[in-house]
Amino acid sequence: MGPTRLEHDLIGDREVPDDVYWGVHTLRALENFPITGIPISESPFLVEALAAVKEAAAATNHQLGLLDDERHEAIRSACEEIRSGALRDQFVVDVIQGGAGTSTNMNANEVIANRALELMGRRRGEYHVLHPNEHVNLSQSTNDVYPTAVKISLILATEELLAAMGRLQASFAAKAVEFRTVLKMGRTQMQDAVPMTLGQEFTTYALMIGEDRDRLSEAVRLLHEINLGATAIGTMLNAPVGYVDIACEHLVRLTGLPLETAVDLIEATQDCGAFVQVSGTLKRVAVKLSKICNDLRLLSSGPRAGLNEINLPPVQAGSSIMPGKVNPVIPEVVNQVAFQIIGHDVTVSMAAESGQLQLNAFEPVICFSLAAGISRLQQAVDVLAVRCVDGITANVEVMRADVEHSIGLVTALNPFIGYAVATELAKEALATGRGVVELVLERRLLPAEQLEAILRPETLANLGPKPPTP
Amino acid sequence: MGPTRLEHDLIGDREVPDDVYWGVHTLRALENFPITGIPISESPFLVEALAAVKEAAAATNHQLGLLDDERHEAIRSACEEIRSGALRDQFVVDVIQGGAGTSTNMNANEVIANRALELMGRRRGEYHVLHPNEHVNLSQSTNDVYPTAVKISLILATEELLAAMGRLQASFAAKAVEFRTVLKMGRTQMQDAVPMTLGQEFTTYALMIGEDRDRLSEAVRLLHEINLGATAIGTMLNAPVGYVDIACEHLVRLTGLPLETAVDLIEATQDCGAFVQVSGTLKRVAVKLSKICNDLRLLSSGPRAGLNEINLPPVQAGSSIMPGKVNPVIPEVVNQVAFQIIGHDVTVSMAAESGQLQLNAFEPVICFSLAAGISRLQQAVDVLAVRCVDGITANVEVMRADVEHSIGLVTALNPFIGYAVATELAKEALATGRGVVELVLERRLLPAEQLEAILRPETLANLGPKPPTP
Amino acid sequence: MGPTRLEHDLIGDREVPDDVYWGVHTLRALENFPITGIPISESPFLVEALAAVKEAAAATNHQLGLLDDERHEAIRSACEEIRSGALRDQFVVDVIQGGAGTSTNMNANEVIANRALELMGRRRGEYHVLHPNEHVNLSQSTNDVYPTAVKISLILATEELLAAMGRLQASFAAKAVEFRTVLKMGRTQMQDAVPMTLGQEFTTYALMIGEDRDRLSEAVRLLHEINLGATAIGTMLNAPVGYVDIACEHLVRLTGLPLETAVDLIEATQDCGAFVQVSGTLKRVAVKLSKICNDLRLLSSGPRAGLNEINLPPVQAGSSIMPGKVNPVIPEVVNQVAFQIIGHDVTVSMAAESGQLQLNAFEPVICFSLAAGISRLQQAVDVLAVRCVDGITANVEVMRADVEHSIGLVTALNPFIGYAVATELAKEALATGRGVVELVLERRLLPAEQLEAILRPETLANLGPKPPTP
Amino acid sequence: MGPTRLEHDLIGDREVPDDVYWGVHTLRALENFPITGIPISESPFLVEALAAVKEAAAATNHQLGLLDDERHEAIRSACEEIRSGALRDQFVVDVIQGGAGTSTNMNANEVIANRALELMGRRRGEYHVLHPNEHVNLSQSTNDVYPTAVKISLILATEELLAAMGRLQASFAAKAVEFRTVLKMGRTQMQDAVPMTLGQEFTTYALMIGEDRDRLSEAVRLLHEINLGATAIGTMLNAPVGYVDIACEHLVRLTGLPLETAVDLIEATQDCGAFVQVSGTLKRVAVKLSKICNDLRLLSSGPRAGLNEINLPPVQAGSSIMPGKVNPVIPEVVNQVAFQIIGHDVTVSMAAESGQLQLNAFEPVICFSLAAGISRLQQAVDVLAVRCVDGITANVEVMRADVEHSIGLVTALNPFIGYAVATELAKEALATGRGVVELVLERRLLPAEQLEAILRPETLANLGPKPPTP
Repeated sequence: MGPTRLEHDLIGDREVPDDVYWGVHTLRALENFPITGIPISESPFLVEALAAVKEAAAATNHQLGLLDDERHEAIRSACEEIRSGALRDQFVVDVIQGGAGTSTNMNANEVIANRALELMGRRRGEYHVLHPNEHVNLSQSTNDVYPTAVKISLILATEELLAAMGRLQASFAAKAVEFRTVLKMGRTQMQDAVPMTLGQEFTTYALMIGEDRDRLSEAVRLLHEINLGATAIGTMLNAPVGYVDIACEHLVRLTGLPLETAVDLIEATQDCGAFVQVSGTLKRVAVKLSKICNDLRLLSSGPRAGLNEINLPPVQAGSSIMPGKVNPVIPEVVNQVAFQIIGHDVTVSMAAESGQLQLNAFEPVICFSLAAGISRLQQAVDVLAVRCVDGITANVEVMRADVEHSIGLVTALNPFIGYAVATELAKEALATGRGVVELVLERRLLPAEQLEAILRPETLANLGPKPPTP
Repeated sequence: MGPTRLEHDLIGDREVPDDVYWGVHTLRALENFPITGIPISESPFLVEALAAVKEAAAATNHQLGLLDDERHEAIRSACEEIRSGALRDQFVVDVIQGGAGTSTNMNANEVIANRALELMGRRRGEYHVLHPNEHVNLSQSTNDVYPTAVKISLILATEELLAAMGRLQASFAAKAVEFRTVLKMGRTQMQDAVPMTLGQEFTTYALMIGEDRDRLSEAVRLLHEINLGATAIGTMLNAPVGYVDIACEHLVRLTGLPLETAVDLIEATQDCGAFVQVSGTLKRVAVKLSKICNDLRLLSSGPRAGLNEINLPPVQAGSSIMPGKVNPVIPEVVNQVAFQIIGHDVTVSMAAESGQLQLNAFEPVICFSLAAGISRLQQAVDVLAVRCVDGITANVEVMRADVEHSIGLVTALNPFIGYAVATELAKEALATGRGVVELVLERRLLPAEQLEAILRPETLANLGPKPPTP
Repeated sequence: MGPTRLEHDLIGDREVPDDVYWGVHTLRALENFPITGIPISESPFLVEALAAVKEAAAATNHQLGLLDDERHEAIRSACEEIRSGALRDQFVVDVIQGGAGTSTNMNANEVIANRALELMGRRRGEYHVLHPNEHVNLSQSTNDVYPTAVKISLILATEELLAAMGRLQASFAAKAVEFRTVLKMGRTQMQDAVPMTLGQEFTTYALMIGEDRDRLSEAVRLLHEINLGATAIGTMLNAPVGYVDIACEHLVRLTGLPLETAVDLIEATQDCGAFVQVSGTLKRVAVKLSKICNDLRLLSSGPRAGLNEINLPPVQAGSSIMPGKVNPVIPEVVNQVAFQIIGHDVTVSMAAESGQLQLNAFEPVICFSLAAGISRLQQAVDVLAVRCVDGITANVEVMRADVEHSIGLVTALNPFIGYAVATELAKEALATGRGVVELVLERRLLPAEQLEAILRPETLANLGPKPPTP
Repeated sequence: MGPTRLEHDLIGDREVPDDVYWGVHTLRALENFPITGIPISESPFLVEALAAVKEAAAATNHQLGLLDDERHEAIRSACEEIRSGALRDQFVVDVIQGGAGTSTNMNANEVIANRALELMGRRRGEYHVLHPNEHVNLSQSTNDVYPTAVKISLILATEELLAAMGRLQASFAAKAVEFRTVLKMGRTQMQDAVPMTLGQEFTTYALMIGEDRDRLSEAVRLLHEINLGATAIGTMLNAPVGYVDIACEHLVRLTGLPLETAVDLIEATQDCGAFVQVSGTLKRVAVKLSKICNDLRLLSSGPRAGLNEINLPPVQAGSSIMPGKVNPVIPEVVNQVAFQIIGHDVTVSMAAESGQLQLNAFEPVICFSLAAGISRLQQAVDVLAVRCVDGITANVEVMRADVEHSIGLVTALNPFIGYAVATELAKEALATGRGVVELVLERRLLPAEQLEAILRPETLANLGPKPPTP
């Protein structure tokens, strides 16, 4: 250990390495919470959001006459640097921590104070000049700073996820156009049902992703309600008059987000409803994505002893022991991310349920679960679009043959040959292994042209106008 | 077993008791699914909704010339009877069943057909006159009838839940007014923080319930999108032209609900997104309610060795062995319902995720989980309002004494006596067990009047204008 | 309402219908907990277990001289009647209730007291002669009676489940023998891998069920540790000396179960570890059963556009609109029960986690979740064995053709024709759609007899000795 | 990008940085799975276990004559280096990956091959001399290597967790001795019940941790059953005769663990039962630990307006705004880890349930969830012991006063003053706020000495022989 500086807190004195920007509070947090080994700097956007909140608070304190020009300018500059990506390695406390985010807040206060001191031409640790608590944290409490920063970080992360979902939706939609007339058997309960097109199948996936985007956008809107200025429990104790409104304005300016102060700050300070809603909606996205990936793996099963309807682009060798084997590794990884998110939702629910009285002490695990989930989902969605869906090809002949040999076709003939004859045909087809079409032709039940017309993809799959009913 | 009638299906012939309205399909379902012992008639509103769908379908078929006057009138009358509460005991298939709801649909078809036959002066079982499938189920498939009925039933059930939540919100709001000036210690992380009022605490609960109502209302809106007319997989195969729109109109007329046909019926037929969203939002309600009940149990802990801030009305004796003990049984039962709903959400998520290709075979467990959850939550919410919240009383003196003895008060004195002196006071209070107020007075740091002004509930809890800063 | 009798409790006086055996405590519970509409009498074995506990307590009190002969005999007889199935309709309190089971205990105390009074020639309600609390509940507390009864009831229910699992294991094992030499493609990640036999596949299922039985048996062993005699919090306050041991002996005698008193009664009274363990193990059973049912649905997919390897016995018609369609409804219902149990496990976990200090107030929802899950699982397992597995048939030719056309076969030829040639063959097979076998024969790479030997089922699937390596 | 080398796989050619030990398969995995940013090197023990499996396989191949001395020695040395901690930064593929672990296996094969080549005096990439697949992976498949390595890594990690749990158990046990005679009120359902000692309370926690250790040890035993030698699906295709047994022996020798080959390798290759069992048991540990931490936070609530029975050692400042506030941050972080593990259990359950046919493709997320959970739990348990439990102090006077003023004391007086008088006393105490003891003395119901004897801690809390009943 190199040179150190002496710092002090409620518990006592401690030597802190002199080359770091964080201080004694961060040091204690490092000792108290050696849990995951994942520092908060890896939570996408959290550090950026914290710096924005601190900058907004400083600007407000300055405007209200509580912070002089020099200190304000130093704090502002430090925050700007951090928002631009600097000092990221100084945000070292563990993502899972006790204390309702106090350690995260103090880590930010200390880094900003020490960087501001440097900018003022001072040495790190000269807190009598600019103090992490008394100046950087002025008019604030972890209980308003932390949830506000978490919400901003989740909004920013979700914007990236929504963009990725848009790209995936477009990928499915493009395939839906490409496969518009590819006839195939529809299935219910894993049993052959009636014909449809592969285009319709992919349209469904595009629509599902689109609807999920809408739901997620709605949920994220709830995150825009912040409690900055609430201080300890929402009574605004010791926050100067006017602080709440001005701080929100500054934060809107800095982030470009339409943030709003909650109507009731006591409720807002303890409430995790918005997090639960976002988590539940992420879970919905995960459920649907997993369903789609299950389908893709099923439809591409084979190449011989499977459905073999579509081919996923090969992206890596599947096996060292089986020559030529290629596996659906992209859908598989998406499934796994989905399972994580569904599990995270339980974690978030329990953490939210366990919050007592005026504050939820478990917001760090909520924040981490959501941030990790959103980030992983965004990565998974992008990979799914680019490395899987975009390269899917259709085995048109396989699917057409399945339709032609299917017994389900008989359903479409009901209006033309009658239910009784149709049933007889179905039984014979099942018993003999022959196709309904060949049986109809053999028995001369319908002329070949009419049969072809009835079984035209557009007709069966309801892609266009129906042929005249006899 | 009394007299029977012979019925026939794909599997073969079976004797059915002659005094029941259900038939061979229901009989087989009873044998195949002896799972919970809970018949579908106990799922609130499901039978009513099924009858409405059947009536709407019959009206549409009649309008399109596919069903003659006599049969239509008989089916219509049978459905009306069922919607009025008749024949409920004939809906006997288990709530948990394979087949994606086919058994529920067939149970309805058979009961309606046999009752319609009676109304036509025929005997039960004379299906050549009016057939469960060919007439009652005409132009329909389980795959559009069942989810449509489930959605309607959930909408109706949720309306009752929303009304109950409104009542609970009002109960909390009334208490918030009653306790408006009752000063108490606010707590963060189970540790004394700064003062607030009990009214503010109860306002928070009222607001939480209100926000949850809003979210639940939004989620339920998604249930209004139906797929009636989609038939097997959403391609509308064998549904007559015009059926979809007319059937929806009839269903809107019969239910009074603003239902709409989904834009893409293939997507709508396989998609469980709306169910997942409702489930996730119910979970949010459960999480918040459970949090509130945890608080109520904590605040009423005692009577001697607890917080003892409020008293829940005694509703039953708590113990046979401990004289006079009364327990918070109402919040406890609400907690348990909440735990069930959070568990149900996992069930719903897995069932939705597991749906393959063009249909989700697991809708029955989704329907049951949601219906049971909504119903139990509504009961729990009503009980909580009427048997608990409405009768809560406050131990005003206990709470005031806690504030007066609290060290947290010192936070409010910061601006008046300075941080250094405040810290000294805090230390002495903690060491000696004495109160901050008495120490301030003893040391004559502030005149009694000013101290009283600073510590006035309105001030501390930010209920009104602040006293002038010195 | 008919004639009533007046009863009294801590809260005050209430009229109770004179024709019921329950009393004022039960009445209040009915009013306080109108949650699920499911009375405790529907929890398998709970009433029976409660009566056994009460009978054991009475016998102990009698032996210790605290209960006279007449009262003991009356209580004993009443308990015996209930254990034989009488008075079941008098156990009316809701399965979900606040109060840690107090209402269930009091319902039992009241029914037993009133039935005992009748047996003594008295009228119901003459509690001065024999009192629900002072005599039936003597030396007991809900906090020891209730968990003891719950454990016994779960043991009894699980015994039935284990028996059902044994039957299912036997069904799979019988099929494994039947399909011993049926060659098929093994699959990994939904892609063709290397050959195996259908017998091996079904052996796996038999083994899985067997292992799960073992795990479940181990978990249930934990339920045999009881806390009878602990009274309120485990300090045995007011329980006579000797009560704990004698009561356990009586309970062992009455139930025939090897129950044991916990070493530490304070720990045992608040601990839900055994319930959590049983729940987690049930979840394991559910996970595996669901996996097996997923496989059965996949392997029986078709009949034309699916894997079509096996046929599940048709047990009901699958569709009204699609002639001849049969669905895998039995595996589907098992899947749904599995999803419920996995959800229940979350409920149980939350309830267990939320138990505070010396007692878990949420045992009723734990009890209900486990009892319902065990009962449903047992039904589902029985149905799966009898109505599905026993009737499964194999499409031997389909599977053999898949193996013969598979490219995966080439893996087995590696040692004989070399990796390079094998890879060339694999590529040609994939490009041309032809089979590896025909390509080998066409190119005369191996004599037909040797090829046949290599590809013999016993060899490929490792059923017997390998052919000599060249 | 610096100098590169050209590598080749099924998909085609790729340039790989020449300074890395991994190759083309790893490169593709990095591109395909940019999911969490967490490389497998951060999964405790996984890399170590992989190297042990590879070394055992090489030793077996050598022994069976399939690998020459030089190659064997090079592979062996490379594996030994890795097992000693070298080359950790070369294990770069993401912990969440598709392909059932193939990328993890190939990452290991490539690193070992290239390091072995170096040891042979060759350049990285000279695979014609020593090939990742043909030599390092000889006689293996991802499907047996990966689960075997995962199991070993989990066993090693769990050993550390079990040791930490032992330390925590000892901490609680030491406090139980220290607080052996500290009288306090026991509570049920958050209401005052009857007296006990703080020592009994802490004994309970020690016992709970001890029981959980036993359960976890049992579950981990299941992980010792491995499938090494199963190759692709468990049929041992292409694995030489004798390989299975010899490889297991070598692995036992290298790891020192009592590993055993599964009886049925097909079942073992697809089965995730052991993982589900471990996950469920971890969840049990999490549930109990969370319960204990809830209690610690509750008992230490205050310092004034809380229960204030115990003091947790202050480990960091609790608030910047509230002077002197200290929060229970260590129990809070343990709660959060517990919530994560309970969520992970849902993830593991879903991943296990979704495994199809002969292999579970989702083992990576199972492995990661378990490994992360075990590691975090171990850290949390250690922190809880050292930074919290060991420093807990008791507020003896507060607790004694609570007992003396409690109404629950009256329960213990029942046998001496009668139930009627006791009830009267209870009512008066509740109404007047006075203590039962003082009321008894005032009314001279019992002599002071006898009262003291009855209320002696040893008596009330059942720590020793009871005083004679009157």
